[in-house]
Amino acid sequence: HDEKITLSHGSGGKSTHNLIEGVFAPAFSNPLLDAMDDAATFRVDGTDDIDHRLAFTTDTYVVSPLFFPGGDIGKLAVHGTINDLAMAGATPLYLSVGFILEEGFPIVDLRRIVASMAQAAKEAGVAIVTGDTKVVQHGKADGVFINTAGIGLVRASWLMGQAQLEPGDKVLLSGPVGDHGIAIMFAREALDIESDVQSDTAPLHTLVASLIEAAGEGIHCLKDPTRGGVATSLNEMALGSEVSVALDEQSIPVHPEVRGACEILGLDPLTIANEGKLLAIVAPGVADTTLQAMHNHPLGRDAAIIGTIQAEPPGMVFLRTDIGGLRVLDMLVGDPLPRIC
Amino acid sequence: HDEKITLSHGSGGKSTHNLIEGVFAPAFSNPLLDAMDDAATFRVDGTDDIDHRLAFTTDTYVVSPLFFPGGDIGKLAVHGTINDLAMAGATPLYLSVGFILEEGFPIVDLRRIVASMAQAAKEAGVAIVTGDTKVVQHGKADGVFINTAGIGLVRASWLMGQAQLEPGDKVLLSGPVGDHGIAIMFAREALDIESDVQSDTAPLHTLVASLIEAAGEGIHCLKDPTRGGVATSLNEMALGSEVSVALDEQSIPVHPEVRGACEILGLDPLTIANEGKLLAIVAPGVADTTLQAMHNHPLGRDAAIIGTIQAEPPGMVFLRTDIGGLRVLDMLVGDPLPRIC
Ligand SMILES: Nc1ncnc2c1ncn2[C@@H]1O[C@H](COP(=O)(O)OP(=O)(O)OP(=O)(O)O)[C@@H](O)[C@H]1O
Ligand SMILES: Nc1ncnc2c1ncn2[C@@H]1O[C@H](COP(=O)(O)OP(=O)(O)OP(=O)(O)O)[C@@H](O)[C@H]1O
Ligand SMILES: [Mg+2]
Ligand SMILES: [Mg+2]
Ligand SMILES: [Mg+2]
Ligand SMILES: [Mg+2]
Ligand SMILES: [Mg+2]
Ligand SMILES: [Mg+2]
Repeated sequence: HDEKITLSHGSGGKSTHNLIEGVFAPAFSNPLLDAMDDAATFRVDGTDDIDHRLAFTTDTYVVSPLFFPGGDIGKLAVHGTINDLAMAGATPLYLSVGFILEEGFPIVDLRRIVASMAQAAKEAGVAIVTGDTKVVQHGKADGVFINTAGIGLVRASWLMGQAQLEPGDKVLLSGPVGDHGIAIMFAREALDIESDVQSDTAPLHTLVASLIEAAGEGIHCLKDPTRGGVATSLNEMALGSEVSVALDEQSIPVHPEVRGACEILGLDPLTIANEGKLLAIVAPGVADTTLQAMHNHPLGRDAAIIGTIQAEPPGMVFLRTDIGGLRVLDMLVGDPLPRIC
Repeated sequence: HDEKITLSHGSGGKSTHNLIEGVFAPAFSNPLLDAMDDAATFRVDGTDDIDHRLAFTTDTYVVSPLFFPGGDIGKLAVHGTINDLAMAGATPLYLSVGFILEEGFPIVDLRRIVASMAQAAKEAGVAIVTGDTKVVQHGKADGVFINTAGIGLVRASWLMGQAQLEPGDKVLLSGPVGDHGIAIMFAREALDIESDVQSDTAPLHTLVASLIEAAGEGIHCLKDPTRGGVATSLNEMALGSEVSVALDEQSIPVHPEVRGACEILGLDPLTIANEGKLLAIVAPGVADTTLQAMHNHPLGRDAAIIGTIQAEPPGMVFLRTDIGGLRVLDMLVGDPLPRIC
């Protein structure tokens, strides 16, 4: 009865999962929410028809620091919602923005963030069409928090999502993992390590469009492995489809600097947050075509096939390690890096 | 260059207006945002056709205290977004929720808020279909902040909004002003005044449906006068339509307790926030029908015709006072009541 919110509840890993499953999902339950995908998809006429669906999603951003190598909170807030729409196979159309400003926040910094959002929206071809602005007393927030919600038009005329994985499917990853989390970490801690690691924040909707073009309904699930990293995202899919995921550690791309930082800090790059990466779970027959389409896109140059979906044991992720062992890969437990996005 | 955000920037009055016009609107500018209505309305096929439009809106809630007579932050967050959709003539369909939780927040209080949101959504016939959960360190937020965004289907097959006012139009108000702001104030301050004032938070979409049924395209603009009150909302409309608004103070309903509190505290009830009230600006020919429709609805029993739209002087609001004088009624200046919603 005296349970309290902890930082782990915001990690995007196991505690977040348990909080959502234990508090939010049961109270709000409905078929669209229960799917627990990156975006809800529906027709506004309420029918179950699969074409002409809309996608709707939201994320709040509380990243610290507000400006970091490769981006800032504004860019993240625009890209993040575009990406959750893209993961539903949707073309992002319209965004809303909700600002919480702390009393005393410099307006010059606000202008910088707003300019960055405007540019990110313009580059991605989306319009910010509605907004809200609240202010709280000094000491009751931390500079700026931003919520974005977004609406998109679903292009996929088949069902995608974490319930659609099938044994035999291949797991593709669009590029190296851990850049965003490690970049934020370096920006925050005054670690005595030289680092060139930049956030990988990027809008993924054009990459998704080319995957859909290339592989069509062979694409069973798309997911951007943000908070909690690849490990958490794949565990959620394994649970959602009651299948198992077998990964090959050697095939997973990681930048050497990120790998080095993780070794020093005792972190697993597979639990570190990404912003401009996606996992695609595809039918075996289109795996090579999909990989080729990734390689042909600037945001998928280093893509790789990193694993396979298996029937048994349901709900688990395994990693065949570099040294030949097999270990269970859990969701992120605890929170190594609070306020990563 | 060293301008800072102040609490006034969150009042919903003149400073908020100036911040939006000076920082957000120019950077994000597009025709849908520029209308500056409570919700953006558009067709997802991108055409200008007026039927089958969607409405999209967002609000963030930072109200303090979280629980108050007549409601709580969760109820407010659901009703508020329903109402901004309703003001666009839309039937609310789907909501998103974004939570910012402060480390240490009691989960039992979170459950209470979530239950309240679930109930408010259920009663209004809307579904919460997507969400997000972030946590910040103790001292970096204030318990819980909630963003809701919403999508609705526009039922009005004509243009409504703050650019649609015409000289001769009548100004209707659905009930007494100032209840929400004064209820929050009493809940916050340990004032030595006995008070029964309750927040008027309520979902207005069924009231709007009956107004549309009764008056059709005679309805030129609907607006819920939340932060900044009736005075600010009417000033925004006067600017948006380049008309003038003439109000009759005697006709404006105010609960005696609210009037008394305002007198003691030196506040104008017309600048105090409301949550379950609406202003309707309607063609003169349908004014009585609209008033009748309000009176027939539980949320409009005390509705009144409170003023008239005039051509000159554009952009101003005038109040014919109880004692027969005429005074300019400005937007809310300063912020008597921070974090009212
Ligand atoms: N407070 C909440 N209420 C209802 N549903 C929620 C809530 N928080 C998250 N969800 C749902 O849980 C699922 C996972 O959400 P999560 O925020 O982890 O995904 P994401 O946005 O893809 O990741 P990230 O937030 O790291 O970008 C989604 O289906 C989301 O709609
Ligand atoms: N940060 C922002 N960026 C872009 N547009 C904004 C922003 N804040 C507010 N707006 C726009 O300004 C207008 C007024 O917003 P405001 O929040 O005052 O309206 P409201 O939601 O009806 O009132 P309240 O927030 O008190 O309920 C709306 O059209 C809204 O979309
Ligand atoms: Mg996602
Ligand atoms: Mg996301
Ligand atoms: Mg608002
Ligand atoms: Mg409004
Ligand atoms: Mg509002
Ligand atoms: Mg999220």
